Amino acid sequence: MNFNITKGFLEILHQKIEQKDLSWIKENVLSLHYADIAEIMDYLDNQEAKYIYSLVDEETQGDILMEVEESVRDRFLSSLSNKEIAEQLENLESDDAADLLGDLPDEQQEDVISKMDDEEAAEVVDLLKYDEDSAGGVMQKELIKANMNWPVNRAVVQLRKQAENVEKVYHIYVVDDDDRLVGVLSLKRLLFAGAKTKISDLYQSTNIISVKSNESLETVAKTMEKYDLVTIPVLDLQNKLIGRITFDDVVEFIKEEADKDYQMASGLSEKVDSYSSVWRISKARLPWLLIGMIGGVFGAQVISGFEGGITRVPELAFYIPLIMAMGGNIGVQSSAIVVQSLAKDSKPLGSILTKIARESLVAVINGLFLSFLIYAIAVAFGNAKLGLVVSFSLFAVIMVAAIFGTLIPLLLNKYKIDPALATGPFITTLNDVVGLFIYFTIGMMMYNL
Amino acid sequence: MNFNITKGFLEILHQKIEQKDLSWIKENVLSLHYADIAEIMDYLDNQEAKYIYSLVDEETQGDILMEVEESVRDRFLSSLSNKEIAEQLENLESDDAADLLGDLPDEQQEDVISKMDDEEAAEVVDLLKYDEDSAGGVMQKELIKANMNWPVNRAVVQLRKQAENVEKVYHIYVVDDDDRLVGVLSLKRLLFAGAKTKISDLYQSTNIISVKSNESLETVAKTMEKYDLVTIPVLDLQNKLIGRITFDDVVEFIKEEADKDYQMASGLSEKVDSYSSVWRISKARLPWLLIGMIGGVFGAQVISGFEGGITRVPELAFYIPLIMAMGGNIGVQSSAIVVQSLAKDSKPLGSILTKIARESLVAVINGLFLSFLIYAIAVAFGNAKLGLVVSFSLFAVIMVAAIFGTLIPLLLNKYKIDPALATGPFITTLNDVVGLFIYFTIGMMMYNL
Repeated sequence: MNFNITKGFLEILHQKIEQKDLSWIKENVLSLHYADIAEIMDYLDNQEAKYIYSLVDEETQGDILMEVEESVRDRFLSSLSNKEIAEQLENLESDDAADLLGDLPDEQQEDVISKMDDEEAAEVVDLLKYDEDSAGGVMQKELIKANMNWPVNRAVVQLRKQAENVEKVYHIYVVDDDDRLVGVLSLKRLLFAGAKTKISDLYQSTNIISVKSNESLETVAKTMEKYDLVTIPVLDLQNKLIGRITFDDVVEFIKEEADKDYQMASGLSEKVDSYSSVWRISKARLPWLLIGMIGGVFGAQVISGFEGGITRVPELAFYIPLIMAMGGNIGVQSSAIVVQSLAKDSKPLGSILTKIARESLVAVINGLFLSFLIYAIAVAFGNAKLGLVVSFSLFAVIMVAAIFGTLIPLLLNKYKIDPALATGPFITTLNDVVGLFIYFTIGMMMYNL
Repeated sequence: MNFNITKGFLEILHQKIEQKDLSWIKENVLSLHYADIAEIMDYLDNQEAKYIYSLVDEETQGDILMEVEESVRDRFLSSLSNKEIAEQLENLESDDAADLLGDLPDEQQEDVISKMDDEEAAEVVDLLKYDEDSAGGVMQKELIKANMNWPVNRAVVQLRKQAENVEKVYHIYVVDDDDRLVGVLSLKRLLFAGAKTKISDLYQSTNIISVKSNESLETVAKTMEKYDLVTIPVLDLQNKLIGRITFDDVVEFIKEEADKDYQMASGLSEKVDSYSSVWRISKARLPWLLIGMIGGVFGAQVISGFEGGITRVPELAFYIPLIMAMGGNIGVQSSAIVVQSLAKDSKPLGSILTKIARESLVAVINGLFLSFLIYAIAVAFGNAKLGLVVSFSLFAVIMVAAIFGTLIPLLLNKYKIDPALATGPFITTLNDVVGLFIYFTIGMMMYNL
């Protein structure tokens, strides 16, 4: 029932496309769900993909176009004339059309718009006004609305007309004569109501959750998640209903945000996966590696400053890895906790100072435990003095790393910079260098060097 | 319109609850959306929360119970008798009731079930049979279904009855006389159809996406995402319709999975945020720190094995931080790329060997670039020989770290272990130790020590 792509299937498909075996293609490809057809197209070359695309009906073409991988879509669109692009855009929902159009160069945009149907062009042009990361930037114009003064039978007739252009109907928005949102009506209630009942007797008017067009996507996602909404109405600054956002856009946003944080924490500067080109993967990895390298060079400078000490007490070098590993780990852990909390709630109750105090307490608990442990280990290896140096330094490094790790993402967030940056290379590198300095300073003091 | 909790609001609320000021509470709390009331309850003590809870109607009680923080819910439930818990469970949807019940100790479970209404108890008991991480474990029994042979007017009457128990209706599932799923009907089509039309003329029967009850939640999430579904029907092994899963459960699952990977990559062993107790945060951080520490001790052993070399060429110690930082970074990057790809597609086309080959190519590109760079830097600092040692070792460490970083998560995945484990402490620690060994071995050779 659910389709799964296999190597064998693709081999046959390549042949059948070459043979233009329409009946096989109809039965085995065109009968599939559009998401499956899109997935198949990801594995075809442009010529083959265009052939399959030409065989499906217009509406499905639009669905497929939005489902294929971005690189496949770009390749596909760049092989079309502006007139053809305009036709394709007309098959899309307004938000998707605006997204695709927004990615084109400015002159091409204008030309494509001029070739589109006037009404649809107007909708798309209107959507292009909004910031991409705002509610207006992801909303779609297609929605179903009913006037509060209509009776059910009139509403059904009106809504039937509207529904032709709206693929997925989940709710009916109820507006007053000035197009201001006054409530929400579920299809369920409309379906089970008598013909003469007035809409105003059916709709829910309290606790209507909506967003303003200029609110950030982050706010939209948090609101829809909190209230478990499938769609959310978007209002302009006069509270007029101008669009709706559906849950799939928000799921995508949530995933992208999670991916971004994950990339940052694992040292990648852009979204890549095993299928990305070798060149792109190398490029995505280089920034963090360069910063790590600069940190390593600074580390070398710090250690060379203590060269005299190492010459006389070479075992001081033994615990460089331990001090570095612990400083880096603690820093990343502290930042990650802050980043996860900010992702849940970007304006948390409670001050920065309280957070630092709590984090310091955690650092004291972990620091005491680990410092005693490493002292015991060093004694077991027969070097109590070195153990004392490592133990004291470790405690100091843990405290410093925890405080940096908490403070930096909070400060970044305060100045509207993505706090996840802190989990990246900077904190680890900073903690490495500071940690080495602390370690050797304590070492020199305790060995009277 | 949308509610935001503030310190000021909470202060007044504490007072009003103490004064039992019903009219203020009604106007300012009870009129809010249940998700907002739940959020407020997170900030109240158990006594206060119970008071507010007792004032809302039964259905809203159920909604609130599922929205409050888990710790608040546990505290709240543990202050209720089994009879009271049974009453609360009856207000919930079947999947939520089963979740809460599943968290109780076995004897208490039985007692609570015996005190529930028979019909609802049967549903919940049935759901408890399924594995928590399977489709059956998250589905709810509440759904709307129509027999394919009904005419629209009969269907509307039947569906109205069913709809009383189903909070959110998005689709109507169409079944045959044996309760086998044959298609899906959108409320939109039903709403706009004539009274005498037969359901079998209305429903969509091709490309019906469903899952089997024993499929994993991961499969469910990927399927719903791929096909942009708000709900998905769940079938038993005979293709009978037994439940549905709604998008909010899947959004939660997606977020939890992303959180887990993120925690792993940032060295936390369980989900914590700034609001977790100091003790819990310390505990979540300790496992990675301990592994890092063991790695550090091994590192110390490796370096002490080369003590003679360091005594004669102390500058060898300078680049320990650089070698370690690079090995760790490369390893985490490689693993993270594999983990992200597996998250998208757990059974990727293409063999492990191909992936290792590609990753090695990336490592060669980055390795060559960084090795030349560090050689140039070392020469600039006036130490060409040391530069050569660092440059050669760095290249070797990058290659080894990249291969380990790719191979380990792929192997973990093959043996059904969460590949994200690889981004955690193990790879970094392994690479640190191996990297140091490579560095000092090359150093000893090149300095003829």
